[in-house]
Amino acid sequence: MVLGSVVGKYTVGVDFGSESGRAIVVDISDGSTLATAVYPYRNGVIDRSLPVEGDPVRLPPEWALQDPEDYLRVFQTTIPEVLRLSGIDPADVIGVGIDFTACTMLPTTADGTPLCLLPDLRREPHAWVKLWKHHAAQPEADRINEVARQRGEAWLDRYGGRISSEWFFAKSLQILDEAPHVYARAERLIEAADWVVWQLTGHETRNVCTAGYKAMWSASGGFPPRDYLAALHPDFADVVDTRMSRDLAALGSRAGGLSEEAATWTGLRAGTAVAVANVDAHVAVPAATVVEAGRMVMIMGTSTCHMVMSAEERQVPGMCGYVQDGILPGFFGYEAGQSAVGDHFGWFVEHAVPERYHHEARERGMDIHVLLQEKGAALAVGESGLLALDWWNGNRSVLVDTGLSGLLVGATLATTAEEIYRALVEATAYGTRMIMETFEANGVPINDVVACGGLAEKSPLLMQIYADVTGRPFRISGSGQTPALGSAMHAAVAAGPGAGGYATIQDASRAMATLRDVTYEPIAANRAVYDVLYREYVRLHDYFGRGENDVMKTLKGLRARARAGEPT
Amino acid sequence: MVLGSVVGKYTVGVDFGSESGRAIVVDISDGSTLATAVYPYRNGVIDRSLPVEGDPVRLPPEWALQDPEDYLRVFQTTIPEVLRLSGIDPADVIGVGIDFTACTMLPTTADGTPLCLLPDLRREPHAWVKLWKHHAAQPEADRINEVARQRGEAWLDRYGGRISSEWFFAKSLQILDEAPHVYARAERLIEAADWVVWQLTGHETRNVCTAGYKAMWSASGGFPPRDYLAALHPDFADVVDTRMSRDLAALGSRAGGLSEEAATWTGLRAGTAVAVANVDAHVAVPAATVVEAGRMVMIMGTSTCHMVMSAEERQVPGMCGYVQDGILPGFFGYEAGQSAVGDHFGWFVEHAVPERYHHEARERGMDIHVLLQEKGAALAVGESGLLALDWWNGNRSVLVDTGLSGLLVGATLATTAEEIYRALVEATAYGTRMIMETFEANGVPINDVVACGGLAEKSPLLMQIYADVTGRPFRISGSGQTPALGSAMHAAVAAGPGAGGYATIQDASRAMATLRDVTYEPIAANRAVYDVLYREYVRLHDYFGRGENDVMKTLKGLRARARAGEPT
Repeated sequence: MVLGSVVGKYTVGVDFGSESGRAIVVDISDGSTLATAVYPYRNGVIDRSLPVEGDPVRLPPEWALQDPEDYLRVFQTTIPEVLRLSGIDPADVIGVGIDFTACTMLPTTADGTPLCLLPDLRREPHAWVKLWKHHAAQPEADRINEVARQRGEAWLDRYGGRISSEWFFAKSLQILDEAPHVYARAERLIEAADWVVWQLTGHETRNVCTAGYKAMWSASGGFPPRDYLAALHPDFADVVDTRMSRDLAALGSRAGGLSEEAATWTGLRAGTAVAVANVDAHVAVPAATVVEAGRMVMIMGTSTCHMVMSAEERQVPGMCGYVQDGILPGFFGYEAGQSAVGDHFGWFVEHAVPERYHHEARERGMDIHVLLQEKGAALAVGESGLLALDWWNGNRSVLVDTGLSGLLVGATLATTAEEIYRALVEATAYGTRMIMETFEANGVPINDVVACGGLAEKSPLLMQIYADVTGRPFRISGSGQTPALGSAMHAAVAAGPGAGGYATIQDASRAMATLRDVTYEPIAANRAVYDVLYREYVRLHDYFGRGENDVMKTLKGLRARARAGEPT
Repeated sequence: MVLGSVVGKYTVGVDFGSESGRAIVVDISDGSTLATAVYPYRNGVIDRSLPVEGDPVRLPPEWALQDPEDYLRVFQTTIPEVLRLSGIDPADVIGVGIDFTACTMLPTTADGTPLCLLPDLRREPHAWVKLWKHHAAQPEADRINEVARQRGEAWLDRYGGRISSEWFFAKSLQILDEAPHVYARAERLIEAADWVVWQLTGHETRNVCTAGYKAMWSASGGFPPRDYLAALHPDFADVVDTRMSRDLAALGSRAGGLSEEAATWTGLRAGTAVAVANVDAHVAVPAATVVEAGRMVMIMGTSTCHMVMSAEERQVPGMCGYVQDGILPGFFGYEAGQSAVGDHFGWFVEHAVPERYHHEARERGMDIHVLLQEKGAALAVGESGLLALDWWNGNRSVLVDTGLSGLLVGATLATTAEEIYRALVEATAYGTRMIMETFEANGVPINDVVACGGLAEKSPLLMQIYADVTGRPFRISGSGQTPALGSAMHAAVAAGPGAGGYATIQDASRAMATLRDVTYEPIAANRAVYDVLYREYVRLHDYFGRGENDVMKTLKGLRARARAGEPT
């Protein structure tokens, strides 16, 4: 140690994903990551049967649960590990922040005990955590939408006119519908994001982000009114006041100090500042250097989230929603999404790539995606002769329709796997352009893009295609774990300047967020061809997506009936 | 040998394919095949450079030539071989018949010497045989169609309103356009079918079938008029009278007796009856037991030909053509086609089947197609959720448009290879139903179907799907080499009752043609679902195929420009 050196200040960011939790410890002076640790959830995604002893408790289709104890194990293993790896003094860690998937929610007792930990409810599926991709509450979502439309509920327009089965009230209402005895025991219904912060601080807080994006709350209108909720189910009328909270905390604020118990789990000092909970996609925005309007952040993984801010409140049809101060204070934060991106390419590699490509990849020691991208990159724009609609998992934005499906047109007897792969990549880029143009047409400008996530970092071909198709420069977040960095930044704000942290998330972002030293600029010659292809994409998009030809729904209906063994 | 046994009578049928020639010797009492021999053409399909010594003579794209000496080698090797294998006395062989691909044509001198055998023309591509799939005469075909439309030529309607680049006048005109010196030396322009019969008999004959289907001849109107041909090219005005013949021989008639020279090649007796030449798809009809109107014969291989007869003359839009007495005397013979069927499934297996399927097929010692059909057969109708347009190689009937391309709709992240494979099979069945319904809507009934060719014989799943989709029973030809059997039947008719043969092809068919002991009957429950799917197919077919959305052509145009390195 050098005598006289300034003692560093550090924060810990913990990112809770679908399969694992990840902690990093960060130097808040420049955002550099000193250590990383990952804990894969012991019980992962629970979608077949509950992890309980005795007779198996099988789950119906579309269910996806998690075990709340897995979240505690993330704290108990990863934070001690990053402290050990980095060798820093826990006294120099001034804050902890977390981000989570959303809406991932659970029922608890008044003291925060998950109902699934109560012995008499352990074999009750509705007592467990419902993961974001739990899709079994579709009947409840349908009712939420129908009743809202009938009553002309104004908040519906903030969410593109449709509430997803993934969201908070749909999941809560499913508990009430299907397991009223569990609902009766649920003294609290809470986002897992807020629940893990509760476990760190010892008292309950609620963040404004999940309330706004997933529970139809707004600063001006609050939650949906009591009589609307009563119309959904008489026993649902008082759900907000009996099981939730109207006391919502701003992002970056201090939820509390680390409890003695959590200090023993983590090795951090009791009293260390804990930031209010956040959501993975939202917390990534300042971590990708974006603290102003007009710059889109795309979090690209199995699916893509598109985040953008505006000083203005705008209704943009077909988006996932917007929330005042929902990403950064002072802005309306808008979210859109594409429901299959990495999943799309993953499906192709799993189901449609010939043997000889896998042989070649193995011989050359390459990932199969890298091989397909190398071969795809050798094609000129337009050379594949193919065009696809990127709806293998439905369309989230701008059509908000899970009943849509994938389409490929232009195949010939000379069509190759790399041509199809490239066409699928291009299709996701057209989908992103559609989202950008819908934002702009409704008064939310998009000037440039910062992308983060594995797909963005690993595929220059993909980034160049996105730049060429959208006509906008694409940059890449400097961190390989952007959400966790965002949580660490919020931790520094929660700690505040008095503790050596930052006064605002903007300040934290300017100090701690970086970009990679590469910009993908649109290439004019490619753009010209993509403009032609995009016009064709839009025509197919509208023909199949806006009701002129509902063949995709007819096919899904036939498939469902065939699988159920029903007559047509 | 049993004393007192009736001495059998035999004929030889020779089927000239794209890659090889095949001879069979048949007992004419029951059509049973005694022996088979195949000769793969030494020079195969010539599509890169001429098989000549010295500097290579490279061929442009879309060219496909053959070597006429390969055809003679078929006679010289396969007929002696089947005689040897069967052990029959050549004196008991009462006739020889042949069938050929069409239009496969060549320029010769007045004595029938192919121009490519003349030393000074050996390195001239236009002096060689142009195989049916030579597609380089598209500019000539375009001119043939345009001039015909301008002049309101009535014969154009017999061919669905469009003449193919594969046909006789397009290929002949290309010689004149591009190699007038070769055209000047061509004292005869002749179908290879007729040319090989000439080689057997020593004198030239011309058959009514290729004249009608490939050279715009009809019994009532003859060939296109002189002033039309002059409008194509002044030097083309007298092509019929100077280089072809208006003397056309009926199918089943005797072209002549085997020449002394051909007797030495083949081991047959000089003077043996030689039948007038025929075409592979057409000769298959009576060999598949069909000698009446209303029964379709489908010859299913890489592509499918659909043959049906009617006592009535009808204009059916989008068919390949119809000819009076063109299949059997006394009927108008109609032909339609699908340009990729086996090729379609072949493409899929080559370009889109994952590694693990190939592993499983190898482990179980199965052909990959058989494996995919086994897995596809386990799916209920409609279960794949997929629908395809079978246009990977354009659409021959009923749209007659090579600019169309393949489409697949309905893909999800759960879509499997066997689901896509089954959807491609179903797409070809929908294409067949479209052809059948177009025939029926224009007064040519289709009551049932006999299929022949490898695809029909090997795939019960395919046949059941075709029966279910079309709502018609499908039967399978009893012979594994239906065209060669048809040629042997025509040989028995050419020999006539005086030599122990038959008076008519109907008599020959009743005695010699058989069906397999299986009928694929439509299953009502499957038909109901396929009716729904077919309606969706028709809607996509018309939307993409009849000009409402020309995206397929836009994509092909972009592909062609990208490949040529041209700007958009």
